[in-house]
Amino acid sequence: MGRTSDARNKILTAAQSLIEQRGYSALGVAEICKTAGVPKGSFYYFFESKESLALAVIDEHWAAERREWERALSGDAEPLQRLRRLFEAMETRQRAGQDGCGSVLGCMYGNLSLEMSNRADAVRLRLQDIFEEQVEMVGAVVAEAEQHGEVTVSDTQGAARSLVAQLEGQVLFAKLHNDPAQLSTLWPSCLALLGMRNHQVPAHA
Amino acid sequence: MGRTSDARNKILTAAQSLIEQRGYSALGVAEICKTAGVPKGSFYYFFESKESLALAVIDEHWAAERREWERALSGDAEPLQRLRRLFEAMETRQRAGQDGCGSVLGCMYGNLSLEMSNRADAVRLRLQDIFEEQVEMVGAVVAEAEQHGEVTVSDTQGAARSLVAQLEGQVLFAKLHNDPAQLSTLWPSCLALLGMRNHQVPAHA
Repeated sequence: MGRTSDARNKILTAAQSLIEQRGYSALGVAEICKTAGVPKGSFYYFFESKESLALAVIDEHWAAERREWERALSGDAEPLQRLRRLFEAMETRQRAGQDGCGSVLGCMYGNLSLEMSNRADAVRLRLQDIFEEQVEMVGAVVAEAEQHGEVTVSDTQGAARSLVAQLEGQVLFAKLHNDPAQLSTLWPSCLALLGMRNHQVPAHA
Repeated sequence: MGRTSDARNKILTAAQSLIEQRGYSALGVAEICKTAGVPKGSFYYFFESKESLALAVIDEHWAAERREWERALSGDAEPLQRLRRLFEAMETRQRAGQDGCGSVLGCMYGNLSLEMSNRADAVRLRLQDIFEEQVEMVGAVVAEAEQHGEVTVSDTQGAARSLVAQLEGQVLFAKLHNDPAQLSTLWPSCLALLGMRNHQVPAHA
């Protein structure tokens, strides 16, 4: 039992790394198994198909990343300061990816959205849920910032959605230029989307 | 001569449509030739490789789309009105894609950035140039809007970059949801990025 779940984990780890580096379509099950160091036969013991493996990879990835989002967005700091912590964590994450494998890997959900959403409905729906959850998490903190009088927006969820869209757009540029510094203007853009100018933000935020 | 250039055009047209619908990695040269209705031998007469075909598709696509951008951004209207025309044209384009093939196809450059930029340097550089050109075109109109006193931004090119990033992020959502209406908040987000609130915009804009 220990051994079989080891094999499943090895497949998941190999698939995550390969999908992040090269996308989904370019991969075959044989290559994933070879990288994982498990026999191809065991693949279909754990996963019905390459698509169901992709779903498992997405779920594992989001389970870990959600904790990172929750950690950044919770705590006693002012709401804007927590939002800033989240967006700075995203830049740190892209830097870590580049340090690790030489390439800015971008956002797995954004990558797979553009690559797969026309073709794989189960993946599309899962990615919709994840982005929905991200917008809700950000929206809750924007709502707090409104209650604290830090920002005034006409549509809280709309503003949260534009923040997540800005993150995806700027992460795309970071990946395209293989340069995490492309994200250095992310926070000023987020402040603008919240109706603030940089100089309006209190120093402690 | 007429025939051979017909074959080249057929390959380009088939490849553009297939790349828009399914991305790059999922395609093979044989399938492209079959869709184009040309013998596989003629492919390598016109293109060195699948990657050089992708570059030709990107160039043709941008040559046509650049004219659309120029048309939207030029003319006698106020700068903000021209910017709005551009962003509305992008929504119209996604609607047309959906009407044509049933799927919101997204932005070809964004799609290929996330799919290919880790792996194909020539494609990466070409896409960088296209986004650079887009940011410059938008930046020129933002600068005009500043001269006209329509907006005040602290960093014109930075603001232009955040507008193009917002477009890419929201087009990603439109593709993911297969719903062009996801772009209906694009213009309000753009106004916010330019430091304006919707109600501050003169009625004619």
